[in-house]
Amino acid sequence: MENKKYTSCINTVRPVSDALSIISGKWKLPIIISISVGNERFTDIQNSIEGITPKVLAKELKDLEQNKLIARIVTADYPVRIRYKAEPYAETLTPVIYALKEWGENHRKKITE
Amino acid sequence: MENKKYTSCINTVRPVSDALSIISGKWKLPIIISISVGNERFTDIQNSIEGITPKVLAKELKDLEQNKLIARIVTADYPVRIRYKAEPYAETLTPVIYALKEWGENHRKKITE
Repeated sequence: MENKKYTSCINTVRPVSDALSIISGKWKLPIIISISVGNERFTDIQNSIEGITPKVLAKELKDLEQNKLIARIVTADYPVRIRYKAEPYAETLTPVIYALKEWGENHRKKITE
Repeated sequence: MENKKYTSCINTVRPVSDALSIISGKWKLPIIISISVGNERFTDIQNSIEGITPKVLAKELKDLEQNKLIARIVTADYPVRIRYKAEPYAETLTPVIYALKEWGENHRKKITE
């Protein structure tokens, strides 16, 4: 009986899957980028990201808050002001965002060539 | 009337979204990693990735083939042998995979601390 074994890749796949499970999807990184460049208010974040609906944005902001990537800051003003800020932990995503940006730029060049 | 404008981040968000649209989801990068470390046969790829079903793997392989990231090679043997190989283009994803791997490792450390 043939006993050829597959090559394990769990040491790479596991952390990559962990990372993807946090940042995967269409919106999480765009939202982090938008907040990182200085958009603080819900409507500003929404306006800066093409195609996102308020419902989806609200859900994604909650997820990102739970994962300690952004903070929701409520100022006891009248009316109450709600701002979003990137947590220092979000900065650790910079190499990921940079690598994806580079790849996305090259990919667009490639497919439009 | 207040005329505060949001800060545009389209120059970063667009390429990042482009990249995510190709590699997003739970399985695409794990499959590319598995093939890159030398798994060629459908069953070997399946066995190397925990939790993937044959149906999902077949669909994802087709997507990756269409995006020129992997090649499906049919050998006119009896029985016909089908192998999968990474295209050179898949290598351009190495910095993305590396950045995600690093981040995933640190994230696991952080949440298990």
